[in-house]
Amino acid sequence: MQAIQKQSTDVGLTYIDNAPVPEIVHSDEVLIKVRAAGICGTDVDIYRADKPLMNRMKDKLPLTIGHEFCGTVEAVGKGVVGIEPGQFVSAEMHLICGHCYNCLTGNGQWCLNTVIAGIDGAGAFANYLIMPARAVIHLPENLPVEVAAYLDAIGNAVHTVRSVDVAGKDVVILGAGPMGIMATSLCRLMGARYIYVTDVHDSLLKIAKEEGADEVYNVSDAKQQREFVKRATSDKTKRGVDVVLELSGHGQAYRDALRVIRMGGELSLLGLPRGDIAVNFATDVVFKGITIRGIIGRKIFTTWIEMLALLQGEFIKTAKRIVTHQFSLTDFEKGFKAKLVGEGLKVVLIPDEKLA
Amino acid sequence: MQAIQKQSTDVGLTYIDNAPVPEIVHSDEVLIKVRAAGICGTDVDIYRADKPLMNRMKDKLPLTIGHEFCGTVEAVGKGVVGIEPGQFVSAEMHLICGHCYNCLTGNGQWCLNTVIAGIDGAGAFANYLIMPARAVIHLPENLPVEVAAYLDAIGNAVHTVRSVDVAGKDVVILGAGPMGIMATSLCRLMGARYIYVTDVHDSLLKIAKEEGADEVYNVSDAKQQREFVKRATSDKTKRGVDVVLELSGHGQAYRDALRVIRMGGELSLLGLPRGDIAVNFATDVVFKGITIRGIIGRKIFTTWIEMLALLQGEFIKTAKRIVTHQFSLTDFEKGFKAKLVGEGLKVVLIPDEKLA
Amino acid sequence: MQAIQKQSTDVGLTYIDNAPVPEIVHSDEVLIKVRAAGICGTDVDIYRADKPLMNRMKDKLPLTIGHEFCGTVEAVGKGVVGIEPGQFVSAEMHLICGHCYNCLTGNGQWCLNTVIAGIDGAGAFANYLIMPARAVIHLPENLPVEVAAYLDAIGNAVHTVRSVDVAGKDVVILGAGPMGIMATSLCRLMGARYIYVTDVHDSLLKIAKEEGADEVYNVSDAKQQREFVKRATSDKTKRGVDVVLELSGHGQAYRDALRVIRMGGELSLLGLPRGDIAVNFATDVVFKGITIRGIIGRKIFTTWIEMLALLQGEFIKTAKRIVTHQFSLTDFEKGFKAKLVGEGLKVVLIPDEKLA
Amino acid sequence: MQAIQKQSTDVGLTYIDNAPVPEIVHSDEVLIKVRAAGICGTDVDIYRADKPLMNRMKDKLPLTIGHEFCGTVEAVGKGVVGIEPGQFVSAEMHLICGHCYNCLTGNGQWCLNTVIAGIDGAGAFANYLIMPARAVIHLPENLPVEVAAYLDAIGNAVHTVRSVDVAGKDVVILGAGPMGIMATSLCRLMGARYIYVTDVHDSLLKIAKEEGADEVYNVSDAKQQREFVKRATSDKTKRGVDVVLELSGHGQAYRDALRVIRMGGELSLLGLPRGDIAVNFATDVVFKGITIRGIIGRKIFTTWIEMLALLQGEFIKTAKRIVTHQFSLTDFEKGFKAKLVGEGLKVVLIPDEKLA
Repeated sequence: MQAIQKQSTDVGLTYIDNAPVPEIVHSDEVLIKVRAAGICGTDVDIYRADKPLMNRMKDKLPLTIGHEFCGTVEAVGKGVVGIEPGQFVSAEMHLICGHCYNCLTGNGQWCLNTVIAGIDGAGAFANYLIMPARAVIHLPENLPVEVAAYLDAIGNAVHTVRSVDVAGKDVVILGAGPMGIMATSLCRLMGARYIYVTDVHDSLLKIAKEEGADEVYNVSDAKQQREFVKRATSDKTKRGVDVVLELSGHGQAYRDALRVIRMGGELSLLGLPRGDIAVNFATDVVFKGITIRGIIGRKIFTTWIEMLALLQGEFIKTAKRIVTHQFSLTDFEKGFKAKLVGEGLKVVLIPDEKLA
Repeated sequence: MQAIQKQSTDVGLTYIDNAPVPEIVHSDEVLIKVRAAGICGTDVDIYRADKPLMNRMKDKLPLTIGHEFCGTVEAVGKGVVGIEPGQFVSAEMHLICGHCYNCLTGNGQWCLNTVIAGIDGAGAFANYLIMPARAVIHLPENLPVEVAAYLDAIGNAVHTVRSVDVAGKDVVILGAGPMGIMATSLCRLMGARYIYVTDVHDSLLKIAKEEGADEVYNVSDAKQQREFVKRATSDKTKRGVDVVLELSGHGQAYRDALRVIRMGGELSLLGLPRGDIAVNFATDVVFKGITIRGIIGRKIFTTWIEMLALLQGEFIKTAKRIVTHQFSLTDFEKGFKAKLVGEGLKVVLIPDEKLA
Repeated sequence: MQAIQKQSTDVGLTYIDNAPVPEIVHSDEVLIKVRAAGICGTDVDIYRADKPLMNRMKDKLPLTIGHEFCGTVEAVGKGVVGIEPGQFVSAEMHLICGHCYNCLTGNGQWCLNTVIAGIDGAGAFANYLIMPARAVIHLPENLPVEVAAYLDAIGNAVHTVRSVDVAGKDVVILGAGPMGIMATSLCRLMGARYIYVTDVHDSLLKIAKEEGADEVYNVSDAKQQREFVKRATSDKTKRGVDVVLELSGHGQAYRDALRVIRMGGELSLLGLPRGDIAVNFATDVVFKGITIRGIIGRKIFTTWIEMLALLQGEFIKTAKRIVTHQFSLTDFEKGFKAKLVGEGLKVVLIPDEKLA
Repeated sequence: MQAIQKQSTDVGLTYIDNAPVPEIVHSDEVLIKVRAAGICGTDVDIYRADKPLMNRMKDKLPLTIGHEFCGTVEAVGKGVVGIEPGQFVSAEMHLICGHCYNCLTGNGQWCLNTVIAGIDGAGAFANYLIMPARAVIHLPENLPVEVAAYLDAIGNAVHTVRSVDVAGKDVVILGAGPMGIMATSLCRLMGARYIYVTDVHDSLLKIAKEEGADEVYNVSDAKQQREFVKRATSDKTKRGVDVVLELSGHGQAYRDALRVIRMGGELSLLGLPRGDIAVNFATDVVFKGITIRGIIGRKIFTTWIEMLALLQGEFIKTAKRIVTHQFSLTDFEKGFKAKLVGEGLKVVLIPDEKLA
């Protein structure tokens, strides 16, 4: 079958069409025929041979990557209940242990022993993959395949927005990539009062505006950055915004976040800064009484259930719009190139049925 | 009457015994005869002529300081309801505006326009002070005067411990000053499973141990510091502790906090670091999914009600023990000296009735 | 000036045009010229001479009633800060004491000493009324007067919907009067997955459908009632709905609520049943692990701030639509008749400027 | 081996000593040698041939009952990880499906497909039983066997108390059986301000007093019942208590609960009333703004982790004291008799090693 593999710790990925179709070994396994798979930022980092990722993966190469996908159940192990061939499914690719403190208390998103399919084990850029039944989730038949292809990422956005109560709140969203666009749309739908979005690309800010942002700022322009801070702190009764969602990982965004947030405000962090960021905790955190939350993965399966509900409503329009490119798996290089040059939002790869 | 004043922005404080007794001007005011007042760390900083504090106070000098106290109602304005001469009271010295967003939504601890009596206006190191009725709180007659003298500080400790749910949890308390000792006792009372306390003074760690710590570490010793981190991360099902209370303001404590906290753990910050602290937010906050809360003041009046309830139980023993020194107001220099040399936990000053 | 008064405990109300304009006596008072006022169900009960209400009001008659309104500030007492003549305002007519446990802990909606203007004291069916400054709330200039006229009721609906987290949830709304219509619209806006609405009037159910209900049932028809219960319990993974909002006060609605709610579901009660309702707590509450919340008034001022934010978005369409009748204050009988025969949703009365 | 079985739907239970030792069939099973097992109220109802229970069980007879126990792992299926022969364990006897909405969202206590071992399948009144590995929980070696024998019940008490935040609160506990005694001790430990306990047995009220109740009332005496209501509503700032825990299932207790609870108070229900109870929801629930929670089972495994932590502290004294009787399994009739005549609190049965 087809597969996109990381074969060495060098830059790049390799397409093969003679990978063996995986076989069900344990009674709780499900064989899924992949219909579509999204390229995640982490996949791009794997392509680029990001150092920490290469260290994590080097002993498992060659490895088929890809951890956002949807597909059709092909076969199930004999112990599997409630999943049948022909069903439309996706899976939570953070495979959790079920035994650690966090798993035992209903917080699998914080599992101590998470194994990520597509990084630590075989992934979804292929015609088939094997998943444990407990990670498989049914999808509604009316969900567009290209949206079902990147539910993992949609879940990150939903988890971030749902980490605070945005109804009636003034919200700042830092970063207008796929996460920021989705967060903007979700905050609007969930009753946010006013939404500011910042980014460094006007084209993304334009989309954010169309998806519900009240004001957008290109913070690569120092004047706009100052104007943003001024505006976001202009409400005399609050002197800042209630909620900040940090999705960019930029140091300046962190500094802006701590300036524009009101006393007692809430800051959720999904973006991944490189290196350290210096913070004056006394003035910016303690005296302001703010709450900062790191967001990782998706609540299993609360976030999945919420996102599937949201995708039955207005939010589906945003989710469809974010898929800017679709390529066959054979043309994966085009897909990665689009991401590498910052051309597209979400790029989806489609395996070739004939090679399955 | 007697008063301890900051008269200039130089180091030191001045005792006078000819200050005018304040008079009720507005109908909502209450005149209180001070029975005892605690010296807070901020008072020590005022003594030392701490730069930011001097900038804040310079236009109001000379000013009577002191913002932890208890006393007896002497007289009330004609619009005051429910407060009568002779009653035993204290007051929330963070005087809140009642009009900003946070006040209007029940979060006065985050008031945008807080005025602190004893810093921004006349305080309690005197025979009398005037308070608005809305800030006055009744005290039970059985509450020891020396404990009632520093409820403001007790409230900080209660607010910090109550910012998380410690029952059944493993807790690290960083800093064993009065706040840390109170936090240790409160965590023990409220059902914490296991408590680690760190400090740089063995004498304080000894008290923490007696107040309920399971393990204490003097982190001025690098070996003990490493041993602490190793022990606090030794539980195989958690690989860290559930809750960290940071009460020291030390950079190393912040680093320890982020290392020993488990995935999804909760970190409450009350200590005030000087300057910036560098944090790797990607690895230590986002990927770990932790929550960080800045703690300011006391919930008005939720924290007061809770602390008065707690002081009716076992916690009173800890609160009494923390009062290591009592001096007459005339001897205030002895009290400040004890604090300056790090000799005492809580120092209480007693005005002279004859000079009232 | 004009005023609609309850003059005796008999059925009916009396219109007068020679009521004295109230005068500011205390320094914290605000004189407001009424622009519009909504008729509440309680006003209809006062008209009808409802027994418990007459007992409550009998010693205060004659009394000007009305407790939903908006107006323009005419004058302010000398102690009032931040409110000025000419401003567009409404007021929280549940006047709270500020001194009881619930007031002191930020839960004024549960004040033990609530005085309701329009029931326990002079109300808003007049050209002018006096309000304490602390109860007055500023309104955005773009808020339509007829909507601003019944914010008190809108607040009830917002408070009820916001008592649970409806995003991604299946919701049953029992009753499609103004409260039910607003709740339907709000649940839809806030991301509910699926909404069922029941009532006994097809005309109201039609509106509920247009405002976002997925399915509506006329439960006066036993067949439809059974079909409703069957459908609401048809999800195999839940066997019931996540959330029920009871807005009707009918005994059958309570029974339906307890049948259709899933294990661990949440039931919020705003409707007021007459007399007792028998419940099998063992099977329907304890074994099901459900949570039941009584909803009273509005959170002061959290709910006000949230509703004003929501009224800046899509929800304003629903709020405008609900105002089905507007009459001059002189024609108040027409307005009450519309309510008494169940003809309208919200009826708004407009004082005559010339008689002010 | 020994086993206590329900063999028919008649009153009584049967002891046999030739039951076959169960064998591991599935790879996820654990064979446990029972060391001790508690008699639950439900077991007494099974003895009495309670109608609903007999209907539930009739097709599975003969059945070994018992669902509170501790034991030693004897053998494990080949797929079991982390559980080894010789370990001291108990198990969550509510066997949950893992597939329904509530299981998938971390609320297994509300599983739609719960199977209870000892009612729907073989239980623990025997020398051995088989449990799925996912239900087994490790116990600390220092936990007394007679306490480990009834963790299921201790978990109910912990779950109930932890359903509200009792720190600083005034609490009423209705019923002073084992649940009420444990709840009293837990509320005291977790910082409750004041605790009232009611029951109809003076001997139980005496124990409640010793375990931390401030006031106790024998409500079989109408005068004491009136005095209780008067006292519990005597606080002028609250006019009632913050929290009520209903553990008795008596109709009068429900009526008392609704009278003594303050505006906005919280009522948790664990007791199981027989038949319907009539409630005036308008005056007692909606206007009072109270929250009512049905409590079922234990949070899996949050409650287990919390209770094991609490049993490492002061609470162990209460838990040991509650075990008033221990009998060999052969003498089970003596144990049931003690419960039937209301003589003991917790009765524990010990299997005979020689018959294993």
